[in-house]
Amino acid sequence: MKRRNFLGAAAAIAALPGCAPLPTSRGTGDLGVVIQRASGKLAVVDTTAREVLGEIAGLGDLSHASVVYGRDGASAYVFGRDGALTHVNVRTQRVLARVQQAGNSIGGAISQDGSLVAAQNYTPGGVRVFDARTLAPLADIPATYTAADGSTQRSRVVGLADLPGRRFVFALFDADQIWVADLANPREPRITKFAGIGRQPYDALVTPDGRHYIAGLFGEDGLALLDLWQAEPKVRRILGGYGRGEQPLPVYKMPHLRGWAVAGREAWLPAIGRHEVLVADALRWEEVARVPVAGQPVFVMARPDGRQVWVNFAVPDYHRVQVIDTVTRRVVRTLEPGKAVLHMEFTPRGEAVWISSRDDDRVSVVDTASFETLARLDVPQPSGIFFSARAGRMGL
Amino acid sequence: MKRRNFLGAAAAIAALPGCAPLPTSRGTGDLGVVIQRASGKLAVVDTTAREVLGEIAGLGDLSHASVVYGRDGASAYVFGRDGALTHVNVRTQRVLARVQQAGNSIGGAISQDGSLVAAQNYTPGGVRVFDARTLAPLADIPATYTAADGSTQRSRVVGLADLPGRRFVFALFDADQIWVADLANPREPRITKFAGIGRQPYDALVTPDGRHYIAGLFGEDGLALLDLWQAEPKVRRILGGYGRGEQPLPVYKMPHLRGWAVAGREAWLPAIGRHEVLVADALRWEEVARVPVAGQPVFVMARPDGRQVWVNFAVPDYHRVQVIDTVTRRVVRTLEPGKAVLHMEFTPRGEAVWISSRDDDRVSVVDTASFETLARLDVPQPSGIFFSARAGRMGL
Repeated sequence: MKRRNFLGAAAAIAALPGCAPLPTSRGTGDLGVVIQRASGKLAVVDTTAREVLGEIAGLGDLSHASVVYGRDGASAYVFGRDGALTHVNVRTQRVLARVQQAGNSIGGAISQDGSLVAAQNYTPGGVRVFDARTLAPLADIPATYTAADGSTQRSRVVGLADLPGRRFVFALFDADQIWVADLANPREPRITKFAGIGRQPYDALVTPDGRHYIAGLFGEDGLALLDLWQAEPKVRRILGGYGRGEQPLPVYKMPHLRGWAVAGREAWLPAIGRHEVLVADALRWEEVARVPVAGQPVFVMARPDGRQVWVNFAVPDYHRVQVIDTVTRRVVRTLEPGKAVLHMEFTPRGEAVWISSRDDDRVSVVDTASFETLARLDVPQPSGIFFSARAGRMGL
Repeated sequence: MKRRNFLGAAAAIAALPGCAPLPTSRGTGDLGVVIQRASGKLAVVDTTAREVLGEIAGLGDLSHASVVYGRDGASAYVFGRDGALTHVNVRTQRVLARVQQAGNSIGGAISQDGSLVAAQNYTPGGVRVFDARTLAPLADIPATYTAADGSTQRSRVVGLADLPGRRFVFALFDADQIWVADLANPREPRITKFAGIGRQPYDALVTPDGRHYIAGLFGEDGLALLDLWQAEPKVRRILGGYGRGEQPLPVYKMPHLRGWAVAGREAWLPAIGRHEVLVADALRWEEVARVPVAGQPVFVMARPDGRQVWVNFAVPDYHRVQVIDTVTRRVVRTLEPGKAVLHMEFTPRGEAVWISSRDDDRVSVVDTASFETLARLDVPQPSGIFFSARAGRMGL
């Protein structure tokens, strides 16, 4: 593990042509980044002016990349599929530090207090934790388990999320386990393991209040639920019949569970393989409704006020986006913002949504009340969109 | 209405001794302000370093002052009791613009898209709306009504809050009305009036999802509820027996309704005059429990995850703060952070709370898990605390 690049504060202040730092007076609450997956760059965007301010290059393989923000909203951490973790500054549009921390990585998280950044890895299977300020390595948590043949193996890790108090939760795809790592002392992680949760957890989410952790199961029916507010948390099975089931349908793209939406008292979930969005009561975790949609849902995301849920789809329906009214539970609008819609992100108070259309090299900004397109930005092969307001939210 | 002070971008960049602009690389997501009510100043604070970075002076009478943030989190708007509205920048720590917009004002709000700032006034009674960028006046909404004697009067306005889509909602204390103002065209506000809502609405709040508007009634029992998601919203009475009632108790300080906390499926409310916090179901709006506390509650605030509710009190119990666990509904801790606790503000992800103790000239930063005091800051006569993450929230 080595640091490949470090630019100190003095260097970061110097302006590059076409990549000027922002005016001193400008805040970062309305900034964000869009991942340009093919070119290894981030576009830095302004959600007030609705324009691209600049870009940050040299980030490696950004397929399936994701971003978390430090407390100040200027520091951001980019988790590349190639196992690189890069600390960037969106105000100065510079790379601050970069480590090659694994061979194959699938995202990360930042601790509640902003002091620790954690990456979840497929190869070698486990979680690595870094000092958010310097990217110095602090903890290495190999996801070891005993396989059926008695040998010790390492599992791929999925569904990593932050919990209150310097804790992280994640799932072990190959070991059928959920682990909670407490890094109160970052050099000595304390791990609580939940085994036998169900076969092949493939992704997971923590609810916005940090209370429930839910892992989707690829190997059997239903999902695994952990209520972290219980004195002695136990995993229980919910929504039997929701998962892949005993007669799995063909799945063109696995839904992203982090995209699941909690809107008021209900969770809105992508049905795997089916052209449906499921509505579950978010207390009893029982199914209460299904809403037919235009394809296999990938992201199912609630507008911040919970009044609308926006859905994008797997191939061949990935040029469409549908909007569901959560009161009437009906699709109220179908949009076609461009080819290969990969991601959506709401502005912090929800007046607009930004949508990536990879194959049209376009990000569309859509008014969530009128459904008018407010702006179209040229961004080469855009995928994930991450706004700095995530700094203030749990589980993102 | 005149602009008294305007500093352009060029002037704002120049540093003053002891009041330096922040480094170019620094974001604004972890900044905030504390109102110094006696000196007409704001302390600019850093919630990561837990320190005072500087101050902004010349803001007039800041008793009962409040602050809202622009979308970028650097622009902030200060509503003074003397009717002044001041636009400041917390990064440069400078006053950008200032208008004397009324004789007696009681707070304000910013529109969902950040383009409009509205002030609610006692004298002259009404709401005035300004361009958030320049403070140019855009709309004047006099709160006129027909009094019992047939004359036209102006009511004092309370409980102003933003609603999705360039709308504001507010209550008319003297007219027993709630108004919704739609400023899609800011120069031609469209007003929807709800009359006969109950006697003397004295403060109000909008729930975090923007769905429910609730006004407390001073002149009779219960509260007025408006469900803004209904196709044709109507006001209904809720929680009879909660309000002042037919045999009012002495009230040492009116609770702040904006402080009411929605935690999960419940709203936690200060009982007027009683040493109790009420718990109401946030869907049916019926009382489900009461929690005995150490005095007359003033602010009842949920930690962002909803697991805890923090309460401060009116005289003579205003040196105490109590913490309620929302699962067990019991007081789990009583703190004495200093004399005359006036306000509390959680960090965006809730790991800490900042508490103003006016008569000890102190702001305390308390860990919400361990209840340890993490820092004590010297701030002269501190009152309201407002962190920049409010920029991304509705109704704040």
